[in-house]
Amino acid sequence: MTTPASNKPGRRQLANAIRFLAADAVEAAKSGHPGMPMGMADIAEVLWNDYLSHNPKNPKWFNRDRFVLSNGHGSMLQYALLHLTGYDLPLEELKHFRQLHSKTAGHPERHETPGVETTTGPLGQGFANAVGFALAEKLLAQRYNRPEYQIVDHRTWVFMGDGCLMEGISHEAASLAGTWGLGKLVAFWDDNKISIDGNTDGWFTDDTPARFEAYGWQVIRNVNGQDAVEIKTAIDTALKASDRPTLICCRTTIGFGAPNKQGKESSHGAPLGKDELAAARVQLEWPYGPFEIPEEIYAGWRAGGAGALREDQWNALFDQYAATFGNEAAELSRRSHGDLPEGFVESANAFIAKLQAEGPVIASRKASQMAIEAFAPLLPELIGGSADLAHSNLTLWKASKTVASDDPNANYVYYGVREFAMTAISNGLALHGGFIPFDATFLVFSDYARNAVRMSALNPAHAIHVYTHDSIGLGEDGPTHQPVEHLASLRYIPNNDVWRPCDAVESAVCWRAAIERKDGPSCLVFSRQNLQHQPRDEAQVANIARGGYVLADAEGGNADVILIATGSEVGLATQAKATLDAQGIKTRVVSMPSTDVFDRQPVEYRESVLPKAVRKRVAVEAAVTDFWRKYVGLDGAVIGIDTFGASAPAEALYPYFGITAEKVVEAAKALG
Amino acid sequence: MTTPASNKPGRRQLANAIRFLAADAVEAAKSGHPGMPMGMADIAEVLWNDYLSHNPKNPKWFNRDRFVLSNGHGSMLQYALLHLTGYDLPLEELKHFRQLHSKTAGHPERHETPGVETTTGPLGQGFANAVGFALAEKLLAQRYNRPEYQIVDHRTWVFMGDGCLMEGISHEAASLAGTWGLGKLVAFWDDNKISIDGNTDGWFTDDTPARFEAYGWQVIRNVNGQDAVEIKTAIDTALKASDRPTLICCRTTIGFGAPNKQGKESSHGAPLGKDELAAARVQLEWPYGPFEIPEEIYAGWRAGGAGALREDQWNALFDQYAATFGNEAAELSRRSHGDLPEGFVESANAFIAKLQAEGPVIASRKASQMAIEAFAPLLPELIGGSADLAHSNLTLWKASKTVASDDPNANYVYYGVREFAMTAISNGLALHGGFIPFDATFLVFSDYARNAVRMSALNPAHAIHVYTHDSIGLGEDGPTHQPVEHLASLRYIPNNDVWRPCDAVESAVCWRAAIERKDGPSCLVFSRQNLQHQPRDEAQVANIARGGYVLADAEGGNADVILIATGSEVGLATQAKATLDAQGIKTRVVSMPSTDVFDRQPVEYRESVLPKAVRKRVAVEAAVTDFWRKYVGLDGAVIGIDTFGASAPAEALYPYFGITAEKVVEAAKALG
Repeated sequence: MTTPASNKPGRRQLANAIRFLAADAVEAAKSGHPGMPMGMADIAEVLWNDYLSHNPKNPKWFNRDRFVLSNGHGSMLQYALLHLTGYDLPLEELKHFRQLHSKTAGHPERHETPGVETTTGPLGQGFANAVGFALAEKLLAQRYNRPEYQIVDHRTWVFMGDGCLMEGISHEAASLAGTWGLGKLVAFWDDNKISIDGNTDGWFTDDTPARFEAYGWQVIRNVNGQDAVEIKTAIDTALKASDRPTLICCRTTIGFGAPNKQGKESSHGAPLGKDELAAARVQLEWPYGPFEIPEEIYAGWRAGGAGALREDQWNALFDQYAATFGNEAAELSRRSHGDLPEGFVESANAFIAKLQAEGPVIASRKASQMAIEAFAPLLPELIGGSADLAHSNLTLWKASKTVASDDPNANYVYYGVREFAMTAISNGLALHGGFIPFDATFLVFSDYARNAVRMSALNPAHAIHVYTHDSIGLGEDGPTHQPVEHLASLRYIPNNDVWRPCDAVESAVCWRAAIERKDGPSCLVFSRQNLQHQPRDEAQVANIARGGYVLADAEGGNADVILIATGSEVGLATQAKATLDAQGIKTRVVSMPSTDVFDRQPVEYRESVLPKAVRKRVAVEAAVTDFWRKYVGLDGAVIGIDTFGASAPAEALYPYFGITAEKVVEAAKALG
Repeated sequence: MTTPASNKPGRRQLANAIRFLAADAVEAAKSGHPGMPMGMADIAEVLWNDYLSHNPKNPKWFNRDRFVLSNGHGSMLQYALLHLTGYDLPLEELKHFRQLHSKTAGHPERHETPGVETTTGPLGQGFANAVGFALAEKLLAQRYNRPEYQIVDHRTWVFMGDGCLMEGISHEAASLAGTWGLGKLVAFWDDNKISIDGNTDGWFTDDTPARFEAYGWQVIRNVNGQDAVEIKTAIDTALKASDRPTLICCRTTIGFGAPNKQGKESSHGAPLGKDELAAARVQLEWPYGPFEIPEEIYAGWRAGGAGALREDQWNALFDQYAATFGNEAAELSRRSHGDLPEGFVESANAFIAKLQAEGPVIASRKASQMAIEAFAPLLPELIGGSADLAHSNLTLWKASKTVASDDPNANYVYYGVREFAMTAISNGLALHGGFIPFDATFLVFSDYARNAVRMSALNPAHAIHVYTHDSIGLGEDGPTHQPVEHLASLRYIPNNDVWRPCDAVESAVCWRAAIERKDGPSCLVFSRQNLQHQPRDEAQVANIARGGYVLADAEGGNADVILIATGSEVGLATQAKATLDAQGIKTRVVSMPSTDVFDRQPVEYRESVLPKAVRKRVAVEAAVTDFWRKYVGLDGAVIGIDTFGASAPAEALYPYFGITAEKVVEAAKALG
């Protein structure tokens, strides 16, 4: 069904294009969430048509505004916007919503869809990512802008629902955004009083505006989210507050336009159904068929190439800037492309070689700090932080400067005790571009941030997660603070590289690897206690980067037994080797700082380290044992810990839990 | 050094006993946190001496007040209080603070120390546990109390620091406590402006009182936490608000009394040092040596056996109550002892046998709901809930009644989208006694609650965590919602029993096991999609509870190949067996709903299921493959998924990721 071309469509009709693309796609997919897109369509229409600074023809334009859909289940809203405004997302893709190989996944996936800034769906995290985006913009602006050159000048807009606001991470992220005064961050609360279980009166009674005011936000109350004029007024007010973020509280009707389901949870997460969809077409005066968008509607959305014009103007400005501030322009350009500075690798390698020669006996957390100290001067893009454990994680370096300042070199984030938001903000900093962020806490508290680590890997984001106090070796703080299952659990997250180095040299190598790795996160796991230095030749130093290598071979290379160890237990393995060798048992020690990286090596290399023919294998790691069965099989042995730890000095705990060189020797000999 | 007995010691001197026990114990241990105990000693003194209703001679007295130290690093405060008020915690234990086998771990451990209600240290969780304690009291009171019999009538008091308040879980838990109007919950905020990284001005600028008012709490501002009179006035005010929880904001000085370190982070997490400790003795006029407590100080703390008197009075009241309300008294008594009702096991077994006979083909989440429906009528202690996914997790049953009501049968919690607080509140409900709580979300969002699951296991708490949508089988929602690494990661938490049943019968058995298991949590993992029913004889039905069993054996029992599977993949294994059998490859199928439980079985049983001699083994589970190497070794094969999933219908995803019966057959035959 079509109608004769009308005149310029009104705002409501433009918004209705979102509504019906969303509802029709959900109907076709037989699953999805029509309610949110139908409720927020008017807000999205005003924002995208009147305010959002972007270029659909180049989703990677550096100075674009960032738009984040934290309530990611409403993905069809974003797909409709991307399609209507001219991104490379044809109607065919919308017709294949939620199908294999389409660019329109159930939730917005950054790696699938041009124009999606961050993968969302796990509630609250998009909001925290947005705080990271806004922080990135603030810091780049204060480093690179000059009075006449506002080279970095864009906003971050985020849509969020009741679910995002119920999640704890909303508290952590909003608190930090308020503290930092992120004036270019604007959040829209889809206040529709409905979550999956029904009317939120029974479980969401917060005075949300008062809560955000308590964080130092500007709060604009009681905006009719179905009224374009009120929305515009609210956004204009938001733009006036440059010293603090703004929350716009939009009263909306979920499923707006579906006469029998609007305002009810039945419109939230299931197709409207044929009849209700037809009734919505009548109610909203939308005479077009499924996926049918008249040209005048497209014209209303595409605004005559304004996006390309914006980018052209910015490029011209940037060229002028570059003519005057050549170094700054070159550095910003390099950073925005994610390239490392020339000479980084050589410099890092020289540092690593020096460590190998000097052989400091230190905790690997201290070695980590030394690596940061060595690498940071070359990397203005490195931005660090810790969840209130700077002096335990050892994340500060000489040139650290807090981001809660106007310093052009600001590069350190005091996150407070907020592990989850910290990690999601890291993801935002990384996805914005221009930064290599690292965050830090105790390994056991990676639990608090776990899904954000997963989101680092899924996006993927070039983020570095530093975890110190990596085993019972932390001692007296006891089992609440002693990780046991965490190493294995983090290794099992797809596309996540976990490193647990055994000394200062491996620590520096894993930092280098994490900095070089663009296509995903790295978790760097360090000890509280001092670790031995291990001797290596040049080839061995080079092989650390392969994740696993022969640290000490059996005489003649024909090992009877292979000992595999990581981190603090590599020292136990080398001690055990000495005993076994003395008893005529030819022993190889394999240091395996990263199983993830080792598993990606060519089969020949892996065979050279762990020859199939040698089945007498003992793995030792102060962590759950079953993980290591993948290397030692049913015939080998694993020395580790499968219970919670205990509160006592580390020197008492290792023997108590049977993680000693003697036990390794016993286990190796028992293999018969 | 001693001094002549003085007259009745003043409040400050009583509080100083806490300060010096704490500081001296930290000094002796050479590690720990003196700052918080020294700062909060005056608050603790007033609360414990004037208000706390407890009996040191019986830490398990059911109607005691619950005291929770959410800022658990200040553990010595709690140990000092327990010792001084006469719990079974002798001075020797305090002298061995943080040493192996002592009852004074670095953080309060419930399983180690009488009088510790919940293990704390991971910040914010103690506060959420306290919300659970207070909810438990409210619900028991409304079920069991009668006008003349306030049988259940106690308060929950919680100490929390800035760290607890920065954590996201504080938002989730405070919001729920406000919604539920938990008038008997009183929280003390140790507002000392110091966290580990220093003065909190740089990272904690919330208006916390306004935030808590936004949650519907009574907030008492600006209390001098070093002034007993102000503290008393504040507590009296708190007691007057019966319809909402109270936050008492106490301005304190961290390390109060240490002249050079007070008010600074240097007093937070390290021994004061000999000189500073001596100077503190001078400043606070405490002439006694380390661990020396004069008799009059003990006398001031022990209050002449008031605790035993309180319990005696309550026992007398309970006896009268029992005479009138025999059934109620018996039920409450049974619940408070954690005993299941008579006939539960028989009834559960009858239900299981019926399912085996009827063989419904349903999703295991539906089977879970049927099990809840079958078991709940016998179990008034069962309290359920979901993080806003009731109709997806299928956690509602016919007799569910919201706890946000005065209904005596209230047993269902609408948690909203708050997975972490939900799980920590479950722990609080379980640890309070009288409840077997279950909570629910999608398996992938167990990530959001992960450390609370760990705390269920560590305490341990008899809590049940229900996780539905357990694999790529959930389909269209895509990789953000598809768990891959979660099964293995949850199994690796010590003392946590994970179950992934393959049909309605196994689903009911795992529910029975979770209800029967007193000494730790169970994670019950269910599918979104329908699952086949599996035939079993009576012995096989009985063996489900052993975690793994022979579901379909090779003819004659001598298998060439063993297929091991869980949940939705058991159906694939049985299909594969049919093909393999037809090709003359004698195949056994082992269903392994709980590896945790199977691993605890006697070696003979395990050998009977997985004979050492049969090395041709294929495991199949729609999850990370490496986990299964513990059963199949280096010689076997695993069919699973080691990448993120994708958004598409489940029927498209299984073949796309190669998780099919055909692949199992191929893998089995390739073992040669």
